[in-house]
Amino acid sequence: MKQFNAEKTKKELVTFLSTSFKKAGFSDAIIGVSGGVDSATATALATLAFGRDHVFPVLLPCGTLNKNASGDASSLLDELNIPIQNRTIIDIHKIVDDYSSIDPSIDKLRRGNIMARVRMTLLFDQAKKRHALVIGTENRTEHLLGYYTRFGDEASDIEPLRHLYKSEVYMLAEHLGIPNSIIKKAPTAGLWEGQTDEVEFGFSYSDADTILSLATEEHVSTEKIASQWAEKGFNPNIVYRVIKHMEQNAFKHHLPMTKAK
Amino acid sequence: MKQFNAEKTKKELVTFLSTSFKKAGFSDAIIGVSGGVDSATATALATLAFGRDHVFPVLLPCGTLNKNASGDASSLLDELNIPIQNRTIIDIHKIVDDYSSIDPSIDKLRRGNIMARVRMTLLFDQAKKRHALVIGTENRTEHLLGYYTRFGDEASDIEPLRHLYKSEVYMLAEHLGIPNSIIKKAPTAGLWEGQTDEVEFGFSYSDADTILSLATEEHVSTEKIASQWAEKGFNPNIVYRVIKHMEQNAFKHHLPMTKAK
Repeated sequence: MKQFNAEKTKKELVTFLSTSFKKAGFSDAIIGVSGGVDSATATALATLAFGRDHVFPVLLPCGTLNKNASGDASSLLDELNIPIQNRTIIDIHKIVDDYSSIDPSIDKLRRGNIMARVRMTLLFDQAKKRHALVIGTENRTEHLLGYYTRFGDEASDIEPLRHLYKSEVYMLAEHLGIPNSIIKKAPTAGLWEGQTDEVEFGFSYSDADTILSLATEEHVSTEKIASQWAEKGFNPNIVYRVIKHMEQNAFKHHLPMTKAK
Repeated sequence: MKQFNAEKTKKELVTFLSTSFKKAGFSDAIIGVSGGVDSATATALATLAFGRDHVFPVLLPCGTLNKNASGDASSLLDELNIPIQNRTIIDIHKIVDDYSSIDPSIDKLRRGNIMARVRMTLLFDQAKKRHALVIGTENRTEHLLGYYTRFGDEASDIEPLRHLYKSEVYMLAEHLGIPNSIIKKAPTAGLWEGQTDEVEFGFSYSDADTILSLATEEHVSTEKIASQWAEKGFNPNIVYRVIKHMEQNAFKHHLPMTKAK
């Protein structure tokens, strides 16, 4: 991975956000704030780009799931001085239960997809209500690994972080002064109790970022990365696992299939 | 518009569907059947491509809205001999009301977007449940005019009709033997009582198709199309209205905005 310049990235992204919004004719931003590092970073950038009065954070907890996350999200908004009247909190529990009750056989994965899509629906409704754009919070690592629900957490009007690896988002977050309570906790999609991204993957973000960077930017073959990995005393299976994960989910970037006229 | 060969198009689309599914490793199709001509046509094509046992139609009425539409949809499925046990009917009314109750200021447009996204969520949930792909029902006219809800009725795994103008879909539907009750009624997104697409547009699909074809395929300037239109004794304002509609909604094809790495 290349050297990361947090101050330069911050400036570039503030400009990217403000020029993109201006061009599209919008001045207000909707953003789903989960209590995680990606949405915290995007919210901080939006505050710098538009001013705190033009940022409308939406907290979308699901009942008692990830109880502490909402607290972290609220502390962040306090820290950023985002006015109380700009904040919306909607507990999605009842809506998600309504969907789930249709089919008793529903499992946690399907329920997780529904949660992500309920959140999308509410964020875009807020955007319509306030004539605002939805800021997405996807990073490059999640994007390459296909670690998202299509038409769910992946859906947005603008993606300021999609070109940054997860480790770069962390560095940017630190530089922006995001609270430690958010930076230090284990990343989670928060779709069921106890879920953490890295346990689900079977590898760490830090390893994934190094491997994905070699594969997608320096075009090093999987075998070569694996042998470099082994030389350093690491488990080369991690390399195959990351690449397989990326390849198996690549289809998500290529849908829907369409026919040329 | 070019000459339309319904039999050739049918064969091409059956091949497109079956080869695309095979390549992706799927043999079952989910399709939302509204009672309109687009989904009827797509369902008939899917039945030819996969066999009736592999087509899983989902009817998603909203309370008493468009009461007759569900009847038309069911008659179509009877006509196509799609097994009863393959059909799912879910009334989305309660879920939509749950969303709407969050904000008493909600208007019919926002409620319509919510309905489209609730349907998307349920179709993809059915797809996950049955290890199937979602067949979309968008046509080229709707696509060019941006007449859809992003992450709603626009969301799918495969779009067999997106390259066909609405008038071509009608010709294909007739050729496929879609019942007259479906072909003859006014097209509607069905998002509120009495809605019809053409009243909403302020122009007919037939005019739109001719104008869009000249503009996007033969690259004729708007002014030239308008003067041709006037020469034929038609109202040239229609031309400007169609082109404006297309241009104002073109942004939908270009979102989300992203930053290069």
